[in-house]
Amino acid sequence: MGVFNKKFMKKAIGLSIINVAQGGGPFGAVIVKNGKIIAEGVNKVTKKNDPTAHAEITAIRDASKKLKTFDLKGCEIYTSCEPCPMCLSAIYWANISKIYFANTKKDAAKIGFRDDHIYRELAAALHKRKIPTKQALHEEALKAFELWEYKEDKVSY
Amino acid sequence: MGVFNKKFMKKAIGLSIINVAQGGGPFGAVIVKNGKIIAEGVNKVTKKNDPTAHAEITAIRDASKKLKTFDLKGCEIYTSCEPCPMCLSAIYWANISKIYFANTKKDAAKIGFRDDHIYRELAAALHKRKIPTKQALHEEALKAFELWEYKEDKVSY
Repeated sequence: MGVFNKKFMKKAIGLSIINVAQGGGPFGAVIVKNGKIIAEGVNKVTKKNDPTAHAEITAIRDASKKLKTFDLKGCEIYTSCEPCPMCLSAIYWANISKIYFANTKKDAAKIGFRDDHIYRELAAALHKRKIPTKQALHEEALKAFELWEYKEDKVSY
Repeated sequence: MGVFNKKFMKKAIGLSIINVAQGGGPFGAVIVKNGKIIAEGVNKVTKKNDPTAHAEITAIRDASKKLKTFDLKGCEIYTSCEPCPMCLSAIYWANISKIYFANTKKDAAKIGFRDDHIYRELAAALHKRKIPTKQALHEEALKAFELWEYKEDKVSY
């Protein structure tokens, strides 16, 4: 694992600034492995009509594609803003080893982004969340999990 | 907003079962608008080398592409398992109006998936999380947010 390198954060910030100028959201990220940038991402939600196309998600997808693996262990992410819960979870799923961020979720809230709100919703009990959520057909769905348990050649992650 | 319709959940569960048989993770989801399925998704993490390719993310990306919008207000998601924090956050970002799920994050934990662990990590204070996380160059990064605030023709979400 490398130590913090200012140039990588400057690159992520530069991407965030350029992205605003180009009509996207004010967010940029880079993924670093062995001291080199292997992937970049900017927020493309509105430009690509993809609500999941945050800077970090875009960078993770790019890095995984380039390295031909879903496991980014040993990689670090430099992101211009504290990851939203979607992106932070993606960082966990991808096994990224270290996170550097610059702006905070409070800063993002001040300019109208809902990162902080979504963090609170995730921490709330299911029945108290703003999006109505209900469970159904539990027994039927468990069949897929049983099948998974018995499958010998499965690829876990 | 429609009421719960068993056939949509059966479809999501069916997708999760078929996906295991086809070598993917045991998860499926469909997105419904005006009483019709407009998008489907299965877990393709290992098959596509994309750690973000959960069933719900795949379905949301598909629905947004088809409807040509990043705003899925009025849509409902039927998912074979309680959304992980990445997918739940994506559901919030996409403004999906209702969530139906079948298996729980505890069920997912029992067969080796880290949904429940990641929920706990997100709720933990930043310095207590397993992935080391540090802030840097805050002042420089704020420039992108200032630029965003002053931009008059921006597309917010």
